[in-house]
Amino acid sequence: MKKNKIKIFDILKILKLKNKGKKNFFINKISDISRAKAGDLTICKNSKYVNFLKSSKASAIIIEKKYAKLVPKKTFAIISKNPELDFLSIANILYKDVVLDFICSKKLSDKQIKKKYKKIFYGNNFNCEKNVKIGLNTKIGYNVTIKQDSVIGKNVNIGSNVLISNAIIEDNVNIGDGTIIGKKGFGFKFFKNEVLRVPHIGKVIIKKNSEIGSNCNIDRGSISDTIIGKYTFLDNQIQIAHNVKIGDYCMIASQVGISGSTKIGNKVQIGGQAGISGHLVIGNNVKIGGKSGVVKNIQDNKTVMGYPAVEFREFVKKNIIK
Amino acid sequence: MKKNKIKIFDILKILKLKNKGKKNFFINKISDISRAKAGDLTICKNSKYVNFLKSSKASAIIIEKKYAKLVPKKTFAIISKNPELDFLSIANILYKDVVLDFICSKKLSDKQIKKKYKKIFYGNNFNCEKNVKIGLNTKIGYNVTIKQDSVIGKNVNIGSNVLISNAIIEDNVNIGDGTIIGKKGFGFKFFKNEVLRVPHIGKVIIKKNSEIGSNCNIDRGSISDTIIGKYTFLDNQIQIAHNVKIGDYCMIASQVGISGSTKIGNKVQIGGQAGISGHLVIGNNVKIGGKSGVVKNIQDNKTVMGYPAVEFREFVKKNIIK
Amino acid sequence: MKKNKIKIFDILKILKLKNKGKKNFFINKISDISRAKAGDLTICKNSKYVNFLKSSKASAIIIEKKYAKLVPKKTFAIISKNPELDFLSIANILYKDVVLDFICSKKLSDKQIKKKYKKIFYGNNFNCEKNVKIGLNTKIGYNVTIKQDSVIGKNVNIGSNVLISNAIIEDNVNIGDGTIIGKKGFGFKFFKNEVLRVPHIGKVIIKKNSEIGSNCNIDRGSISDTIIGKYTFLDNQIQIAHNVKIGDYCMIASQVGISGSTKIGNKVQIGGQAGISGHLVIGNNVKIGGKSGVVKNIQDNKTVMGYPAVEFREFVKKNIIK
Repeated sequence: MKKNKIKIFDILKILKLKNKGKKNFFINKISDISRAKAGDLTICKNSKYVNFLKSSKASAIIIEKKYAKLVPKKTFAIISKNPELDFLSIANILYKDVVLDFICSKKLSDKQIKKKYKKIFYGNNFNCEKNVKIGLNTKIGYNVTIKQDSVIGKNVNIGSNVLISNAIIEDNVNIGDGTIIGKKGFGFKFFKNEVLRVPHIGKVIIKKNSEIGSNCNIDRGSISDTIIGKYTFLDNQIQIAHNVKIGDYCMIASQVGISGSTKIGNKVQIGGQAGISGHLVIGNNVKIGGKSGVVKNIQDNKTVMGYPAVEFREFVKKNIIK
Repeated sequence: MKKNKIKIFDILKILKLKNKGKKNFFINKISDISRAKAGDLTICKNSKYVNFLKSSKASAIIIEKKYAKLVPKKTFAIISKNPELDFLSIANILYKDVVLDFICSKKLSDKQIKKKYKKIFYGNNFNCEKNVKIGLNTKIGYNVTIKQDSVIGKNVNIGSNVLISNAIIEDNVNIGDGTIIGKKGFGFKFFKNEVLRVPHIGKVIIKKNSEIGSNCNIDRGSISDTIIGKYTFLDNQIQIAHNVKIGDYCMIASQVGISGSTKIGNKVQIGGQAGISGHLVIGNNVKIGGKSGVVKNIQDNKTVMGYPAVEFREFVKKNIIK
Repeated sequence: MKKNKIKIFDILKILKLKNKGKKNFFINKISDISRAKAGDLTICKNSKYVNFLKSSKASAIIIEKKYAKLVPKKTFAIISKNPELDFLSIANILYKDVVLDFICSKKLSDKQIKKKYKKIFYGNNFNCEKNVKIGLNTKIGYNVTIKQDSVIGKNVNIGSNVLISNAIIEDNVNIGDGTIIGKKGFGFKFFKNEVLRVPHIGKVIIKKNSEIGSNCNIDRGSISDTIIGKYTFLDNQIQIAHNVKIGDYCMIASQVGISGSTKIGNKVQIGGQAGISGHLVIGNNVKIGGKSGVVKNIQDNKTVMGYPAVEFREFVKKNIIK
């Protein structure tokens, strides 16, 4: 992944913005508001992210005027009427080469694979690119592709026709057939009849002892990571969008979809075909009924169902008393 | 694709129908009522298609008695009690060889590929059949299959494990991993404990600068084409049925399903897991909320949500005032 | 599939249970309550299975105390406070090697395939394991994998990127691209911060003349089989969970999900994106509207729609009279 760097001075010039302050320092990378460090450019997307401003260590932030006074003194506030669009423009300059998925590079030969990975087992047509780590006793099915910079742990079982890129798969994880892990997420803006894509630089992290079903999609994060906790079980045909974080000991049934940046607690159970909107927080021990459409945050220990999802008692009442 | 031709006289004999008129001319192919030309046999499926009768140039049409007087004089009206079944019977004779998907033919050797396509890049195990066109600078991942008669434009990015057949993919299109384009759609009728399949002779056309996610299905048209407009973005795990037409600059989120022959305007946004029934018309600039079930036409500029989908204000009212 | 055997005496010891009776005989295998024979251990999961007790021929059953008096005299009743967990523990000992999917074994060489199967046609990269039967005139696409112990009938069409294991596919069946048949289902219990998986020893049986779309998942049964009846048509992106039985002449549209152990009659029509809960019985000639969420049994000849699904008239009334 090639990455450029850029001065605040030039950022303002590109965005045609006029801001006061010291503009002569470099931005090295973009980052999530909650994780930004010195040298980073971040964004305050909307009111949901205002709480993070105080503790942010970013060197610069693109933000609407109304929130500007909340920006800490050491952070340069780039006042914008359209923060998302302006952030995207700069991100596209910093990360020119990761705006689209990397299609493929040269795979290792069978001989190279056998030399490099001594105690793994794999089926026919294993496309293993360079800079991939694979732990002991890992088993890999037919037609599997693992792309550059992925790390696979020990005792991992990977089914056939699986595609893994930009991922860290921890020990004892099982991955079903046809599952696709680590592609870029669905992020872009139309702008003057052209399109501006969100660069995806995050990883997918799947923690120990988890299990992913068949024909699932788990997209890589944009500026943070997509994370599946330990001992979490996903059934088939599930869609996990960019930046989603799922806790430990969760059970997620078939055909569920979780939209971007949503955070799910521990021991959460989600019934088949349920959908969860983006940027939500779902507490611990929550149960979500099959086919529910969750459109707001859910507190710990609640059971919800329906579209839009409501507390289970209410759903039953609504649907029995006509 | 082999194709037979058949006389009106014989069509009537096969269908055991008695119709007056000149029966001694040939039908060469079947066609959509709106696109039919001289030599074509078409069908008036139901009342939704009656408006097309006046301007139809078909040589013959299979139609219910109640609409027969609307058929133009130059078109031979085949009066049927079950137009769909009768049309299918004839279509199965005209297109004996395209009732099922073509499984595979001989692929080009690596040497042949390198000779034929000079500026493309492709990964291991590329199954490229004959009569395929691929434009300059196109990149193709691992385990990709492109079948006979497909045309791929310039600067197209095709992910791994992708299957393309019966398709025209224009320039600058991106296609995600595991996506299947150009299979026959879900069309058949049970008849006397046997099954009669709809022949699929249409293409999939994906216009310039569009992007298709991973693990999607876009079925080829039956007698018309399935079309995705330019700058239209599809997320993962989306199902686009036969004959669907989607406009330009649309955004369609993950796990959406669009049923057969539905037409979607420009700049339409569809939330995740929404479903749209078949044979509908969705206007321009329409917004459809996540998980909505759309069962009727939607006019330009409307925002709808719910199952069945209603105007957004109504959905909110219904779900807040209990 | 290796299988151990175990004495009742040892089962009780492992489960730390004290039961009276003759404990000195062997259990050879586990089985479904309705199909259990002498030598089998079965389970009475809940009240839905009590009706099967009378006619059960199992040698032993794990059951709650409240149902124990209904157990026939020749069956040893293992009284448990948590039958499912206890049954799982024993099943994991009996079937140590089938708790996870089998990743892959050595495939036949092209020469071996050509010698063994004389009148089949197949594309590049066919991974065919040992002990596979394939009938005459069967056509197989690119990158297809068929694993040990599968039986494929005559005149079967198998698309590209298909994975088949633990399955019996009868004559004239068509299977679309990217479909995965015969993986283990989504069955496990969390227990003391570890996980106990349900062993899957059942098959997938697809009967004559049926058709499965693309990117579908049909999981193998746990202790019974997953069955698709004859002349039944499935569209794309459908999920059929373990132990589901579907009758003959059914039509199931795209993106439908059917949960574990549900039984569906003959000539049932299911609209796109509908979901059916587990352990239900759906009668013959039932019509289920698109996107419905079915949570209870449905009698013969009913038409239902909605979430939760209700009779169609009621759905219309509910949604028109506001």
